[in-house]
Amino acid sequence: MALATTENTTSLDFGPAVALSCRECGARYDLGPIFACIECFGPLEIAYDFGRVTREQIAEGPTNIWRYRSLLPVPVDVTSKPNMAPGWTKLVKADNLARELGIRSLHVKDDSGNPTHSFKDRVVAMAVEAARNFGFHTLSCSSTGNLAGAVTAAAARAGLDACVFIPADLEEAKIVMASVYGGRLIAIEGTYDDVNRFCSELIGDELGDQWGFANVNLRPYYAEGSKTLAYEIAEQLGWRIPDQIVIPVASGSQLTKIDKAFKELIGLGLVEEKPYKIFAAQAEGCSPVSTAYKAGLDVIRPVKPDTIAKSLAIGNPADGPYVLDIARRTGGAVEDVTDTEIVDAIRLLARTEGIFAETAGGVTVGVLRKLVAAGRLDPDAETVVLNTGDGLKTLDAVAGQARPTAVIRPSLDAFRAVIA
Amino acid sequence: MALATTENTTSLDFGPAVALSCRECGARYDLGPIFACIECFGPLEIAYDFGRVTREQIAEGPTNIWRYRSLLPVPVDVTSKPNMAPGWTKLVKADNLARELGIRSLHVKDDSGNPTHSFKDRVVAMAVEAARNFGFHTLSCSSTGNLAGAVTAAAARAGLDACVFIPADLEEAKIVMASVYGGRLIAIEGTYDDVNRFCSELIGDELGDQWGFANVNLRPYYAEGSKTLAYEIAEQLGWRIPDQIVIPVASGSQLTKIDKAFKELIGLGLVEEKPYKIFAAQAEGCSPVSTAYKAGLDVIRPVKPDTIAKSLAIGNPADGPYVLDIARRTGGAVEDVTDTEIVDAIRLLARTEGIFAETAGGVTVGVLRKLVAAGRLDPDAETVVLNTGDGLKTLDAVAGQARPTAVIRPSLDAFRAVIA
Repeated sequence: MALATTENTTSLDFGPAVALSCRECGARYDLGPIFACIECFGPLEIAYDFGRVTREQIAEGPTNIWRYRSLLPVPVDVTSKPNMAPGWTKLVKADNLARELGIRSLHVKDDSGNPTHSFKDRVVAMAVEAARNFGFHTLSCSSTGNLAGAVTAAAARAGLDACVFIPADLEEAKIVMASVYGGRLIAIEGTYDDVNRFCSELIGDELGDQWGFANVNLRPYYAEGSKTLAYEIAEQLGWRIPDQIVIPVASGSQLTKIDKAFKELIGLGLVEEKPYKIFAAQAEGCSPVSTAYKAGLDVIRPVKPDTIAKSLAIGNPADGPYVLDIARRTGGAVEDVTDTEIVDAIRLLARTEGIFAETAGGVTVGVLRKLVAAGRLDPDAETVVLNTGDGLKTLDAVAGQARPTAVIRPSLDAFRAVIA
Repeated sequence: MALATTENTTSLDFGPAVALSCRECGARYDLGPIFACIECFGPLEIAYDFGRVTREQIAEGPTNIWRYRSLLPVPVDVTSKPNMAPGWTKLVKADNLARELGIRSLHVKDDSGNPTHSFKDRVVAMAVEAARNFGFHTLSCSSTGNLAGAVTAAAARAGLDACVFIPADLEEAKIVMASVYGGRLIAIEGTYDDVNRFCSELIGDELGDQWGFANVNLRPYYAEGSKTLAYEIAEQLGWRIPDQIVIPVASGSQLTKIDKAFKELIGLGLVEEKPYKIFAAQAEGCSPVSTAYKAGLDVIRPVKPDTIAKSLAIGNPADGPYVLDIARRTGGAVEDVTDTEIVDAIRLLARTEGIFAETAGGVTVGVLRKLVAAGRLDPDAETVVLNTGDGLKTLDAVAGQARPTAVIRPSLDAFRAVIA
């Protein structure tokens, strides 16, 4: 583990980011490719000096995440170099789905519109800027699939080498996508947690010590990309935080950053202060956070994942305890759904709103449905549910139930016979 | 074939569209669900009374195709009802690809960012408004795959029934996608041209005479959606028409509408008048337009398609002769590439720009590459190439060449062995 406490930061340009700060003990460090506190081993996160940020400044920016560059650890001229420019995905007013579920106001934040069709393009864009700042020529990651494709695509466009690591049993679409951009893709015989442990070893080895691992040694920067989901939701609602939001949990990082971003928006006066409830969604086959929540525990017991929601299949989620804190503090909850409920929810979202979600989107919509049915989510409050990936990457989940109505010869009689 | 010459148009609202006009003989018809001239059987297209349209008006609109609603056959309040709101996809500055090809200024218009990940969402959005205007409750189409998914998704969100027709041998991803939104998907044993003929029969039958077929009886409206590609390219370039553009050809409709839109922008004073060259791209395995172009002919001889570029596999392209006209008039060309060149081009675009294109994108990039190499495209002129679809829908094209570098156990020794 690289635990350098100081770096020569004179040539670094991370815009409004000024330091790394330990989430546990508050110790501060100069900006560098480090991710854990040398004092207490707590996770490091970015500390900022934002200055004044206005809605007008933001509105003048491009229609991608860089409109929020004054709130992110990136240089002010971030748009001058090639990157994937993700974000500004649709916040879809989901009246049909709302009606089916019996709730009043529902939006789907649909991140399948990103360049590689998952929210990972947001976080990887931060990792690319960090890699550029630190002079890393190779971008790497451990991935459940979406991240691997986002990293190899972004590296290709940014002119960086890529070497990414995935569990060998991933969906075909994710394997092809992570390979096609030309970087190296290493499939590991094991779970995501095995891949993750391997990457931590690799960083400590001379083989990998000059690599930027998006979700390991660049994690404090990388993770900030998830804040843009919250910024966009608030801006797209007309600069308002929703009352309730349902967020998928893999490592838990995304959820913690959405909470952080809402607090930043309130602190900067960009939205009115108001209470909001954060609901966390997991698949039953990988539900360590949900299990801890239901048992009233503060610690997460790791599990071995067994679910079709492979992009959420992290059995030992690093930010799990923070997810528990946030769900409890905001009056939300953590809930999980079965694989069958995931598939049903994918189909429900598709037939009501024309959005074809990945299994992770089936998890959030399924949890939303379950919480409404149980009366645990206010049907009259403004609600947002996240779809963080694309159904084309997890075809197998629905392929058995999404078949042609009929296969016929090109004749009216043949058609009459099947339509009767 | 429905050839009604007049309809009760008092309750119709198609915004600036005022009539249908025959492309061949100029005969005019009231707006209605008709597509061929009763006089000469020529194709009908929309005639407009635009009034004054300014850049400022457009810039105030939403970041989707509806920013151009004053140039489209849709009501002014088109955003008030649920639709897919496609468009405003990225115009990617492709410096890496330009360098590889030896050209100075290149952009990729990347329509894989649309809701169902192809340009078809643009045209289907027009068909939905036409179906609403004409009171059709079922939206239909003949499709090579992308259109079927776009229609079933848009119908789901708009609250219309869907019944769509495809050749039975399509890519798995396109079949699943067209099925998942809940409409009826009928697979036809035959080519796209067989499917298309079947749909024409169906419209003449009582079974289908109250259906809106996006690309048959709603075709004049539907086809106008392709204009938004040209509007966006011009606006994203800073209100400027590129010198050269490479466009894929299936039916040829998209290319003719991009030409029409450039002329409209010039006519309205939204861009400066300037010459531009339009290059048309086909797959060798379905190249009836390219063949006619090279032979110096004005007529298209239909072919039986045999190519991996299934979304372009229309052997009898309705707008083929117009494509020939436009390529010749503008000083462009029509060219084709082999399946191998298509795959190479997909991989080239992926590894240079991080864009994973469908086979149709391999066709345009492959033709661009071929034209530059042959000195038939000016390497110093501002060039745009279209990617109209998504690589996730045509995985098989590259799956054999996009594999993991290695599959290993999670150990540094195993990694060293494969990276050496």
